[in-house]
Amino acid sequence: MKKNILVVGSVALDSVETIHGRTNKSLGGSAVHFSLSASHFAPVRIVGVVGRDFPKPFRTLLKRRNIDLEGMQIMPGKTFHWKGRYDRDFKNATTIATQLNVFEQFKPKLSGVHSKCGVLFLANIDPDLQWDVLKQMDRPRLVACDTMNYWISLKNASLKRLLSKVNLFFVNEEEARQLTKEYNLITAAKKLMRIGPQAVVIKRGDSGSILFYGKEVLAMPAHPVEKVVDPTGAGDTFAGGFMGYLAAAPDWRNCATLKRAMAYGTVLSSFSVENFSVRRTEKLSNPEIALRYLDYTRSLAVS
Amino acid sequence: MKKNILVVGSVALDSVETIHGRTNKSLGGSAVHFSLSASHFAPVRIVGVVGRDFPKPFRTLLKRRNIDLEGMQIMPGKTFHWKGRYDRDFKNATTIATQLNVFEQFKPKLSGVHSKCGVLFLANIDPDLQWDVLKQMDRPRLVACDTMNYWISLKNASLKRLLSKVNLFFVNEEEARQLTKEYNLITAAKKLMRIGPQAVVIKRGDSGSILFYGKEVLAMPAHPVEKVVDPTGAGDTFAGGFMGYLAAAPDWRNCATLKRAMAYGTVLSSFSVENFSVRRTEKLSNPEIALRYLDYTRSLAVS
Repeated sequence: MKKNILVVGSVALDSVETIHGRTNKSLGGSAVHFSLSASHFAPVRIVGVVGRDFPKPFRTLLKRRNIDLEGMQIMPGKTFHWKGRYDRDFKNATTIATQLNVFEQFKPKLSGVHSKCGVLFLANIDPDLQWDVLKQMDRPRLVACDTMNYWISLKNASLKRLLSKVNLFFVNEEEARQLTKEYNLITAAKKLMRIGPQAVVIKRGDSGSILFYGKEVLAMPAHPVEKVVDPTGAGDTFAGGFMGYLAAAPDWRNCATLKRAMAYGTVLSSFSVENFSVRRTEKLSNPEIALRYLDYTRSLAVS
Repeated sequence: MKKNILVVGSVALDSVETIHGRTNKSLGGSAVHFSLSASHFAPVRIVGVVGRDFPKPFRTLLKRRNIDLEGMQIMPGKTFHWKGRYDRDFKNATTIATQLNVFEQFKPKLSGVHSKCGVLFLANIDPDLQWDVLKQMDRPRLVACDTMNYWISLKNASLKRLLSKVNLFFVNEEEARQLTKEYNLITAAKKLMRIGPQAVVIKRGDSGSILFYGKEVLAMPAHPVEKVVDPTGAGDTFAGGFMGYLAAAPDWRNCATLKRAMAYGTVLSSFSVENFSVRRTEKLSNPEIALRYLDYTRSLAVS
């Protein structure tokens, strides 16, 4: 169970509009994007909740990637639904509607199998729930979490309590600034590491990401994509590739390992933005990933 | 003369205000920032103009870096003066005053020595003047240019005529979009290369840069800097390191060479933002550059 990844987060139906088209109630949610990405590296188990309207083909799609859905509870009511629109620059999504539905009652309860997973990813949910989940775990070897601006404002103390107990924190640059009140990302990351995490990954969208680990500061660019169709879930797909690689690695506390993890995260997220919802990632093959990983890491190698 | 670099651009006195302080009539201008950076790799000659007020110590400073000032004409009147302020995010400078002064009459005339330089960098000036200079050159082996939003709007046809004759085009991401009316940077770069340049470098500030050469697309992150003091001249310092390395290389038409050039450009510009004006770059030693280059390229190497 050491390599098993448990992800706790949202399973959603997304209606998204971008300059390249739109989708209606397509498969989404942080746990979904994360799982599809991580499943290329290690066994993944989702803990989440859906309504009775959750389409059977979406379950099939996840199962086809060997993602365990035992912890994906079905509740009376409707699945979490998000409707949003992106501008041409894909920087900010305008939320048209958020219907929490069954997600509002989400109270994750872990089974024995779940609690014994070696790797835990706490996707962006209420930090009190993230904390609850963490408390139910049986000595995981690696714990990571994500969050969002909403929790930074509304549950700051809960979030900081959580951060004091995680190994790895994934955070957007704006959120890192909001949380630390520091504009400079190095200064911000140092402050975050003082709260607890041994490593911080600042996600910067098409500007790439920066990994902070001990005294190391490692910036990586995004893999340039010519046609960005839908950036929804790119951050969770990034975390999925990153955590998936770490779960499969013998020891994550190693700079070279963390760098490879970041490169895989970058590669996986570059695929995810190429089509709506999970259309690109659901069918991704390992050779496709390996090839782009090689392209990407070669392009960074300065000889 | 094959390795000699001729740079034509502004020599200025800058008054800059940032969250870390301010300067009053400190040394600036595109030709200055470029030269100080490029001088670490190859002999540099400036063609520019200053007024009678141009301080002697600034000439001394440039000469100490072996920068040839034979083409830096002294005219009756005052030196070009720019006064500006940066916000905390350093993204946009607010211009408080621009006094062109003697720069308004700038009509670059090249001497025989100038015209025989193997490498030409046309810093951001009126594209008609850039064209004039290019016409005076005696078969340079490498020509690069920069520009700005102002010329893209006001002298679009002149700029495109120039672009049809340069090898390498340095451009900010916003300018690349403005010039091509394409939001995506890969699409924009392809359009730019169709106008003429064999290589395009899109500068993205603290998001790094992307090199386009033939079918190659190479993104590099910025070298993270903890205390950005003044970003003025960072783009020209980047171009200086880039062109300096290419001038010293036996053949610039090579992907590995261009990548190293980009890494040097990135490293030099990371120094330049650490202090006001040229305070950091004027005293930079080759071992300091070599060390940061090693750090930077090692951090990119995914093993």
